[in-house]
Amino acid sequence: MPHNRPLSRPIILGIVGDSASGKTTLAAGIAAILGEKRVTVLCSDDYHRLTRDERLEYDVTPLDPANNYIDILEQHLRLLRDGNPILKPVYDHRHGTFGRPAYVSPTDYIIVEGLLAYHTRPLRDRFDVKIFLDPEDNLRSEWKIRRDCAERGYTRHQAEAEMQRRRDDAARYIQPQRTYADIVIRFFNPDPEKEVDAAHLSVRHTLRPTLPHPDMTPILDAGGRAGYRLQLARDVDGKPVDVLDIMGDIDDRRARMVEDLFWSLIPEAHHLRDHDQLGHVIDERNQAIVSHPLALSQLLVAYHLVKAAMGHTVV
Amino acid sequence: MPHNRPLSRPIILGIVGDSASGKTTLAAGIAAILGEKRVTVLCSDDYHRLTRDERLEYDVTPLDPANNYIDILEQHLRLLRDGNPILKPVYDHRHGTFGRPAYVSPTDYIIVEGLLAYHTRPLRDRFDVKIFLDPEDNLRSEWKIRRDCAERGYTRHQAEAEMQRRRDDAARYIQPQRTYADIVIRFFNPDPEKEVDAAHLSVRHTLRPTLPHPDMTPILDAGGRAGYRLQLARDVDGKPVDVLDIMGDIDDRRARMVEDLFWSLIPEAHHLRDHDQLGHVIDERNQAIVSHPLALSQLLVAYHLVKAAMGHTVV
Repeated sequence: MPHNRPLSRPIILGIVGDSASGKTTLAAGIAAILGEKRVTVLCSDDYHRLTRDERLEYDVTPLDPANNYIDILEQHLRLLRDGNPILKPVYDHRHGTFGRPAYVSPTDYIIVEGLLAYHTRPLRDRFDVKIFLDPEDNLRSEWKIRRDCAERGYTRHQAEAEMQRRRDDAARYIQPQRTYADIVIRFFNPDPEKEVDAAHLSVRHTLRPTLPHPDMTPILDAGGRAGYRLQLARDVDGKPVDVLDIMGDIDDRRARMVEDLFWSLIPEAHHLRDHDQLGHVIDERNQAIVSHPLALSQLLVAYHLVKAAMGHTVV
Repeated sequence: MPHNRPLSRPIILGIVGDSASGKTTLAAGIAAILGEKRVTVLCSDDYHRLTRDERLEYDVTPLDPANNYIDILEQHLRLLRDGNPILKPVYDHRHGTFGRPAYVSPTDYIIVEGLLAYHTRPLRDRFDVKIFLDPEDNLRSEWKIRRDCAERGYTRHQAEAEMQRRRDDAARYIQPQRTYADIVIRFFNPDPEKEVDAAHLSVRHTLRPTLPHPDMTPILDAGGRAGYRLQLARDVDGKPVDVLDIMGDIDDRRARMVEDLFWSLIPEAHHLRDHDQLGHVIDERNQAIVSHPLALSQLLVAYHLVKAAMGHTVV
């Protein structure tokens, strides 16, 4: 079992997406599956070059690579991948300033979540698995306003103004990174007539053939209309992809079926199954609920990390 | 002339010594000789692990390597030596806390001044020239109290208590590094009967044969009693060394003679001579004065850096 064998180097996962696209929530579930002690989560926001006040003064956004220490992020990921510790800068989101740096030792798995982690070729080359989070726009807006007001001291008006201010840079710098992802994960509201309900969001996984995805034909055989669907498609760039949809109204039994399939494909990681952290999220009413589509997304990503680790186990 | 030719890598100078041993003053003069734009001065205090309050709480000192990120300092010097930028932590001496990190690009010369820069073999291996500052104890005490009160917000009582608190760790961790230096520089009061007078301190250079020191026999031939003296000696560890004394009462003409000798030995650097920054120091009455012994110390060290640079000029 890989968790008992040393890895020749850390396995590095990227989770990139615009502000409030769900990066932290996805990362938390994956870390729970793999075991908190074996996972380090890095946020590339720590590599911002400017404080919040400075960005306002210069009228620039943190989405612009020029306002981030991209070369230092490259260097730190290289050091960690080679098994070295780093002294990581710390950006304090609550105050928009820099705190004391943090000493980070490499662990078996490193999750890098952030805005620009695929911006350069050297950055992209650091990752074993690359995820891009691309939720529906209105969904992300709602998440961002809720998060910025609750955790970062913004008023609703400020949060909306900031989003408006970021729109151009998001299109220019964030969205183009989608094309480098092995998996694009898009949460969406299955019924636009209804209000957003975290527990019943659906998710679409666009699976590029850049990774050896698990064989999901058993799901294919089961057909659609059952809460999930797998189909061959062309991506927006015309390239062939698999598209795996998991609907928000999938019932517990079927969700468990898909979950069982994933676990059956990684018997080496079966010991990791003993936990109930998957799919946890805080809904609109501040209630902790479980989302099957989120749980299955976390599991699919974890699958790829365990597989990658198996390729780097020291025998 | 080396200043017009690119270097294959930065030349790195170490200046190590206990707190308030004169590191910053020596570094400033050397940077002035070599040209501020070509020199980066790093202070290894930035690699402290704890704030001032935390050290008081745990009753530990910053002289203990365990309270410093020694491995990160090693890593950063390696990166700079290889031509890479670093994101350096910043310890704020005024408040005893950590500020926002600083982006540092390698320049032709890098001066690392600090408490523990020769503590490990990997650290020592980073340096082209290693200086250890070892002023007389009572001299250093006076410097420390003056500095800590004027610049770091200590009361005289606090500064004295802090020195007492550091005594054991200084003997355990700082002083043993003396043996790794190419040059030990010891400022001393030539007449213990008189009060310390910065303008007339003498200096003793202990020159280990670990560096190709300039031929100073012209000075030897001139004999002693003339403000300077060169003699063969055994160091405290029994090893053969040259000892170069420059007395505080050396007259301007003779000081200029020694200076001329040094410059004549590095004709490649003659263009650097056009400045009057050498030997500047603030005396006991807060007056800016010039010390010939300090000026000649700075010049001797600069000599070795220019020589080292010549060995790494890209032809």
